[in-house]
Amino acid sequence: MSTDVLTIAGVSLGCAQAGVRYRGRDDLVALALAPGSTCAAVFTRNAFCAAPVVVAREHLAAGAPRYLLVNSGNANAGTGQPGLAAARETCARLSDLAGCRGEEVLPFSTGVIGEPLPVERIASALPGLLAGLAEDGWPRAACAIMTTDTVPKLVSREVTVGGSKIRVTGMAKGAGMICPDMATMLAFLATDAAVPAPLLQQCLIAAVEPSFNAITVDGDTSTNDACVLVATGRSGVVVDRADSAAGAALYGAVQEVCLDLARAIIRDGEGATKLVEIRVEEAHDRGEARAVAYTIAHSPLVKTALFASDPNWGRILAAVGRAGLRDLDIAGVRIWLDDVRIVRDGGRDPAYTEEAGRRVLAGREPTIRVALGRGDAEARVLTCDLSFDYVKINAEYRT
Amino acid sequence: MSTDVLTIAGVSLGCAQAGVRYRGRDDLVALALAPGSTCAAVFTRNAFCAAPVVVAREHLAAGAPRYLLVNSGNANAGTGQPGLAAARETCARLSDLAGCRGEEVLPFSTGVIGEPLPVERIASALPGLLAGLAEDGWPRAACAIMTTDTVPKLVSREVTVGGSKIRVTGMAKGAGMICPDMATMLAFLATDAAVPAPLLQQCLIAAVEPSFNAITVDGDTSTNDACVLVATGRSGVVVDRADSAAGAALYGAVQEVCLDLARAIIRDGEGATKLVEIRVEEAHDRGEARAVAYTIAHSPLVKTALFASDPNWGRILAAVGRAGLRDLDIAGVRIWLDDVRIVRDGGRDPAYTEEAGRRVLAGREPTIRVALGRGDAEARVLTCDLSFDYVKINAEYRT
Repeated sequence: MSTDVLTIAGVSLGCAQAGVRYRGRDDLVALALAPGSTCAAVFTRNAFCAAPVVVAREHLAAGAPRYLLVNSGNANAGTGQPGLAAARETCARLSDLAGCRGEEVLPFSTGVIGEPLPVERIASALPGLLAGLAEDGWPRAACAIMTTDTVPKLVSREVTVGGSKIRVTGMAKGAGMICPDMATMLAFLATDAAVPAPLLQQCLIAAVEPSFNAITVDGDTSTNDACVLVATGRSGVVVDRADSAAGAALYGAVQEVCLDLARAIIRDGEGATKLVEIRVEEAHDRGEARAVAYTIAHSPLVKTALFASDPNWGRILAAVGRAGLRDLDIAGVRIWLDDVRIVRDGGRDPAYTEEAGRRVLAGREPTIRVALGRGDAEARVLTCDLSFDYVKINAEYRT
Repeated sequence: MSTDVLTIAGVSLGCAQAGVRYRGRDDLVALALAPGSTCAAVFTRNAFCAAPVVVAREHLAAGAPRYLLVNSGNANAGTGQPGLAAARETCARLSDLAGCRGEEVLPFSTGVIGEPLPVERIASALPGLLAGLAEDGWPRAACAIMTTDTVPKLVSREVTVGGSKIRVTGMAKGAGMICPDMATMLAFLATDAAVPAPLLQQCLIAAVEPSFNAITVDGDTSTNDACVLVATGRSGVVVDRADSAAGAALYGAVQEVCLDLARAIIRDGEGATKLVEIRVEEAHDRGEARAVAYTIAHSPLVKTALFASDPNWGRILAAVGRAGLRDLDIAGVRIWLDDVRIVRDGGRDPAYTEEAGRRVLAGREPTIRVALGRGDAEARVLTCDLSFDYVKINAEYRT
């Protein structure tokens, strides 16, 4: 296990090759949570949420989970009643073997939409999965949950609180259909702090907002997005208030792990060659700041220009203009690429040179900054460029 | 001139090679309108509208125009005060030569954003342009206004009203940055009916709504969209009411010309290999029908699957689910590819086969139909697929 990844006492992980869709690689993961662990989760807001999302919500409402069961290769989405039955059946099979209740298992799936989940293949792999549970299973698990991802995404933080240490480790998968409306495809985090469930939920929501909820590859909010945060309490550090020193430390560590994972997802965006931060400032309110940021982030013309490292700022300006802001005074708008100002007074900055713009875009992580000149609200969104490979990956995904 | 294209008495067209950006091809067009012609126009709602849009609006408000002056290769957008001065100057130069007032010239530009308009090059080409004005100049003009278009777009209709005939001819350009919020990049229509300006404006708005305002290539509303309808009155047929036989005939003909031009734009969408109609029915209101239709039309995942002729209906379903509809009952949603039902009861139709889906998408003009089961409003949107060539065209546009 890499020295960068910290185990979390009370969380063991196991992997197996169930052959859900892929051959010759792990595609099934279980996380076993120590008794007494609390659990928080956020899920997709897509109306067509997948069967495992429905079942995980139900089971979480019934009490604290003991297992998270994750498969890649099949999303079990758009599968109607049979899909719900299949998700429940996988939980039941695992609970039979593990000696817990079916409701104590939360199911998660990611992969192709609309194919029946092969329950028997998953069930057959469960005994081996449980036999291999280990606290150092994070790196292998982070690989097993991948679909079109090219790299595993795994991040840890350790913070000191009043002489004790608490850890937060998280893994995520996601490279396409990424415009989370609360979480990316799948992310699993755990801490060894002891945190009551309501506070843990607040902590997760606070961390997800500026991270997974502020990234987009293609604007396509998935049917399966889920982000889970588990607290095992094994560090002995009790966090019972957000505004305590321990609370601040935990919130900070969880937020950093989420942000690092979110950045890793965008860096691994399908076909991505650049990680682009879009920062919108001086907006009237946060809603319009986000609207402008997402309009730029989703513009295929902006994204293809970024791919070409072409400082085609006219496309950025056109995107700002069509973001639906009422009474926008274009004379007040300024736009920068990193610290190179390209637009002011409604047109190209006289001091701007193409060469300066190209120099910024030659980098792999440029920032587009827009100041609207009409308030003090702001928003940040992370996105990537649109390349030949995005089309290739998504035109060939099922073939 | 092709037998399909009808001249409009009272409208003469001239072309020239001004060298605005392109070499060895026409890039400047003038339409001369007979005295007494009326003129209607709709323009982009992009807040960063281009200098020629601002000037054309001003000049149109000052009275009926005598000339439309169009250049390709340079959008004169994002050019601030100097851009406005340049647009006014080209009008003044033309009016000096033609013996009319500067306000009687409407300027239009399309092409790269943010470059200074080369006024002197345009002015130098004007005498030749005026010398070549001719009623049969439509086909050459339709080519001269092209940018990334691969084919000119030119449509005519002739209808009989009480024994007399009226004609409508229109041309359009546009292949990218297409999500008109009232008109495509540029479209110019003319009729030989006699129509008072207010009625002509109503007629144009009615025709633009289901045509240019219902197409999208990439969701990027341009800074330069403009659509103009001129009525010369030379047929002798007077149209003074929308609800007369002549009014119905004119409305119908204008609408058909707009729809044909809109379809031609999508068929020629950058890199497009398919023309896809998206029809959303049984919506609560037209707003939500349009929201669902545009969410599908703008989904890069749906568009790349269409490019691959892959009936990946899960991506359509996911797009419906993220369109932001309140309290959507997914069990009521049905989705078809042409007449093949792929989704019902929130999942794949049991009778659906991949083979049937592939057969539909093998065609070049498939329809995606979504029934929401919650009302009787509907909307239609035309779009195209997302191919390698879209990325290629837009990554290399300025190089």
